[in-house]
Amino acid sequence: MKLATLPDGTRDGRLHVVSRDLTHCAPAEVPTLQALIEDWEGLSGALIAQYEALNGGGGQPFDPAAALAPLPRAWQWLDGSAYESHGELMQQVFDLPPNPKGRPLMYQGLSDRFLSGTEDVALPSEEDGIDFEGEFGVILSRVPMGADAATAAAHIRLIVLINDWSLRSIAPIEMKTGFGWVQAKPASAMAPVAVTPDELGRAWHDHRVDLPLAVDWNGARFGRAEGHAMTYGFDELVAHAARTRELVAGTVLGSGTVSNPDFRKVGSSCIAERRAIEMLDQGAPQTGFMRFGDRVRMECTLRDGTPLFGVIDQKVVKP
Amino acid sequence: MKLATLPDGTRDGRLHVVSRDLTHCAPAEVPTLQALIEDWEGLSGALIAQYEALNGGGGQPFDPAAALAPLPRAWQWLDGSAYESHGELMQQVFDLPPNPKGRPLMYQGLSDRFLSGTEDVALPSEEDGIDFEGEFGVILSRVPMGADAATAAAHIRLIVLINDWSLRSIAPIEMKTGFGWVQAKPASAMAPVAVTPDELGRAWHDHRVDLPLAVDWNGARFGRAEGHAMTYGFDELVAHAARTRELVAGTVLGSGTVSNPDFRKVGSSCIAERRAIEMLDQGAPQTGFMRFGDRVRMECTLRDGTPLFGVIDQKVVKP
Repeated sequence: MKLATLPDGTRDGRLHVVSRDLTHCAPAEVPTLQALIEDWEGLSGALIAQYEALNGGGGQPFDPAAALAPLPRAWQWLDGSAYESHGELMQQVFDLPPNPKGRPLMYQGLSDRFLSGTEDVALPSEEDGIDFEGEFGVILSRVPMGADAATAAAHIRLIVLINDWSLRSIAPIEMKTGFGWVQAKPASAMAPVAVTPDELGRAWHDHRVDLPLAVDWNGARFGRAEGHAMTYGFDELVAHAARTRELVAGTVLGSGTVSNPDFRKVGSSCIAERRAIEMLDQGAPQTGFMRFGDRVRMECTLRDGTPLFGVIDQKVVKP
Repeated sequence: MKLATLPDGTRDGRLHVVSRDLTHCAPAEVPTLQALIEDWEGLSGALIAQYEALNGGGGQPFDPAAALAPLPRAWQWLDGSAYESHGELMQQVFDLPPNPKGRPLMYQGLSDRFLSGTEDVALPSEEDGIDFEGEFGVILSRVPMGADAATAAAHIRLIVLINDWSLRSIAPIEMKTGFGWVQAKPASAMAPVAVTPDELGRAWHDHRVDLPLAVDWNGARFGRAEGHAMTYGFDELVAHAARTRELVAGTVLGSGTVSNPDFRKVGSSCIAERRAIEMLDQGAPQTGFMRFGDRVRMECTLRDGTPLFGVIDQKVVKP
């Protein structure tokens, strides 16, 4: 099933079922994604039937550029850093302490709004080191405290594509305090369509997205990293998050920036990683961060080209 | 004005105006605290009139123990660590890096629920180092991105008393990653009554609460630290948080555990601080963390005994 949220004047928008090819949509029988995720067991069946009918024809044209984030605001956003090649590179270049063994990295971030996939990103200063981060996320139904990975996996209801905006001049200062990021992590954006795991077919396995994430910066190819290389699957990330808290329905949990060990070949999903590679290879970073007016585009389709999440295509602007 | 939220079967509860002496209450003309804070300018005037009338008599008896948290869930919870005596002690004992000069410490925490002031706290294991943290918090109307301290101050609408539950065995492990706390910071609790700053009279100055916080553990006095000793006032904490993000209406911002330089005399607002003092004075911590069945009580009144926030009195239990 594919779902999107269209604007209706409210903060949560109006949930729509979207056809598999992302050309048509219809108002869902449940008004919002939050309402659906709070009673997934009770409500998703009717929506799946509605989705199957829509794939047979009918509905209205779907304009992904008009959509809000599938979940325009969430009660909780927890972001991991599950791609070891990215983490190890950052530790090497920035002399960070090694990650405790057997523990995923994770922070809690701003969740009161997720920007739409095509929304301009107003950030105060180019001096802050404006960076994108392409990553996958899952939207969860309520997860009980202490859930193990298998229990956690059963609460992964939807997969989304996320651009986790980051300010790299502030990040290391906040990181050194041990308190995590506040100023360095403004609102993230979501691609317009959330999909159930079955839409990925065999590309969803081991609780990971086994597909490449295409990232382009100002129209030039920047990265095509594969999503499968997570050290911890989403099931394990969810279990980690639920160790001492019940996870509220509608929690969004992110993978961290998608990265592969052969990053010199496939490229990166954030500028910080490319700069770290340049520091290793050339002694100093060569690539600057984003400037006002710059655009970043992200897309992940099935390998046969079937669309999944739609496109993130955002411009950085002065407030 | 004093406000509380009583249970009505919904997640946000029903907002009530509470008499100055906390003996009576009446359903507010605005249904929820979130609705009020989203349009404070438009709605608070009528409520203040209602509050003044209630102080003249009428209403129903107010049972603080039956109240929910004034804001049972929030879109954002940002917690500072603004008491320098606490921070410096922790840095000294745990060999932490010094805080960057001129930058408050702050992390984003779990906000999808705030426990009531008398709600049992179910935590998975005594081995996690269960600790309370008494602190003050403010509830904000929408703060624009880039607001300076003076602008920020104008958005401080309500003051609350918070018990920020912490798991001290996990905290240093998460802190070392630089990502901040997820497992170490389960849901916090709020005392039953939120008050406007004018209710503190001269005890609200320099954007700080100039009152002692009484903390008792299992009926024994634990701390009576004064609230005024913040290195950064709430105005500066809010401005720090708003540097790169608009703060959503209903953001709760905390002071961090209340602490004074003469902590050996006035005591502490969390066990971790007492243990750090014992490490300095006796070479090793003497006080253990909380056990299942333990209670913590927190209260802050005006110096003449006039009640403000009501009482936090919580028991730690096995889930």
